[in-house]
Amino acid sequence: MAPILLNCMGNDHNEYIKQLVQVKNPYLDTMEEDILYHFSLGTKTHNLPEMFGDIKFVCVGGSSNRMKAFAQFIHQELEMPGNPEEVSDICEATDRYCMYKVGPVLSMSHGMGVPSISIMLHELIKLLHHAQCRDVVLFRLGTSGGVGLAPGTVVVTDKAVDYSFLAQFEQVVLGKVVTRSTELDEEVANELLQCSSELQNFPTVIGNTLCTHDFYEGQGRLDGALCSFSHEDKLEYLRKAYEAGVRNIEMESSVFAAMCRICGLKAAVVCVALLDRFEGDQITSSHDVLVEYQQRPQVLVSHFIKKRLGRAV
Amino acid sequence: MAPILLNCMGNDHNEYIKQLVQVKNPYLDTMEEDILYHFSLGTKTHNLPEMFGDIKFVCVGGSSNRMKAFAQFIHQELEMPGNPEEVSDICEATDRYCMYKVGPVLSMSHGMGVPSISIMLHELIKLLHHAQCRDVVLFRLGTSGGVGLAPGTVVVTDKAVDYSFLAQFEQVVLGKVVTRSTELDEEVANELLQCSSELQNFPTVIGNTLCTHDFYEGQGRLDGALCSFSHEDKLEYLRKAYEAGVRNIEMESSVFAAMCRICGLKAAVVCVALLDRFEGDQITSSHDVLVEYQQRPQVLVSHFIKKRLGRAV
Repeated sequence: MAPILLNCMGNDHNEYIKQLVQVKNPYLDTMEEDILYHFSLGTKTHNLPEMFGDIKFVCVGGSSNRMKAFAQFIHQELEMPGNPEEVSDICEATDRYCMYKVGPVLSMSHGMGVPSISIMLHELIKLLHHAQCRDVVLFRLGTSGGVGLAPGTVVVTDKAVDYSFLAQFEQVVLGKVVTRSTELDEEVANELLQCSSELQNFPTVIGNTLCTHDFYEGQGRLDGALCSFSHEDKLEYLRKAYEAGVRNIEMESSVFAAMCRICGLKAAVVCVALLDRFEGDQITSSHDVLVEYQQRPQVLVSHFIKKRLGRAV
Repeated sequence: MAPILLNCMGNDHNEYIKQLVQVKNPYLDTMEEDILYHFSLGTKTHNLPEMFGDIKFVCVGGSSNRMKAFAQFIHQELEMPGNPEEVSDICEATDRYCMYKVGPVLSMSHGMGVPSISIMLHELIKLLHHAQCRDVVLFRLGTSGGVGLAPGTVVVTDKAVDYSFLAQFEQVVLGKVVTRSTELDEEVANELLQCSSELQNFPTVIGNTLCTHDFYEGQGRLDGALCSFSHEDKLEYLRKAYEAGVRNIEMESSVFAAMCRICGLKAAVVCVALLDRFEGDQITSSHDVLVEYQQRPQVLVSHFIKKRLGRAV
């Protein structure tokens, strides 16, 4: 029976290794110290396994205020001990990002745009690796422009697509362009859609997300400092996007999907549409309406986390 | 004499118009209201000419703390009335950017990366246009990786170059790539170099600045979560960059140069090198040393502003 036993152990061991957060850098483990510069954390100055080893869910979003609010919200939802108001910013020594830990949930800001979230993801994935985290699911909780959707609709991303509506991300490595896949985890996306059906009045769709590198010209807005196209040109581009399955437009999903995929991390993008871009460019809803919309991705992901932890009602 | 008089008036009028901050969007002035969403400001809710009409210098940088510190510093340098500690954030209703006004100087943060500064620039240029500002000079005050320079050296950008070392910026407009020039104002750069020579122990060079879309793979760092190249590959890329006149690497200069150029704004990029990338990737200098380095672009631009205002000692 020995060979069978060995096989089983081998599989278990492989499974164990597979679940560990993986970096794809042969040099990293040979470094004497790794300073996560934009987090103001490091392997010599901080005990990362002790601080972060139990993390199972990482939720990231552009705005630091919103990610603090999410930390306070998930604190209440998970009925954690202590005052939710008193969550403290682990990255308070820097103003580049903010970071809150609530039990097994990490809530972090990433700023706006692919380069900003890319810096954060490199250092986050290194952090999860150094901390020996296993079985981690990542979520981006964001805001977006809807394409043919009522404002307030939540979009769970199927594929993050580029300006040509292809599910790819172009990364420059030492002056050469490398193309990477931006497919996300189908199982997590479907589980999120199931969660949305369990909530009251929670309009949610699965669709492709167009990831652009700016907010104005790349998204066909007519209200930037620069605009060289007509209203009809804009509508034609949006129609083509809709035909390619695009349901919303934001600015971070492609590199988020690509990097998580390479490092074997299950990931999902959940964004609320603040307006329907077929109807306009400016975000004119009242502050209170916008605040409520922005809570929707938080409510959905919180429900997902509670279900996974066996805490959902 | 009438024709000559008319000619003179015409020239003066043209000069007057030329100095106004120009947007390149025919639709903008037809809009009933323009909401500068990421600033939480608008043409209906705020009197922009009254608030901002006297601005002559706009200084932008990635970090909100640093741009607050610059506002306090220039407050002291210009001997403005009131307590420098009490400068208040005009964009406090949003956490996307911060903005401080000190007399004719605006100090703003732009986050990290081309998309983040691009949103800020669209709304900033619209703000300066709505406020009918004239004769404005823009400065980006930043941090960077040096290429063959001692840490602490200040680089005034000649041309902002892309990963192929070309002085161009690729902007996607409705799914099509448009290439824009990234040349900066030579006169302002030379005036800054002259200013540096008037300061004590102020190592400053004019050189090209490589603008990348990430901090790790695009800049040839061996310490990211992903790394697929060797130490020798990295050095070869840096050597090629050096041969192309590149003296530092950062993440915002290309779109800053391109957009300012299109809108007829005189602009300069002034970044301190925090390390020499030929020597390493990690930023290991002490907190105090880094703080002092980061003050150098502020000191140089402050000297420039004081000279222009006739206040320099």
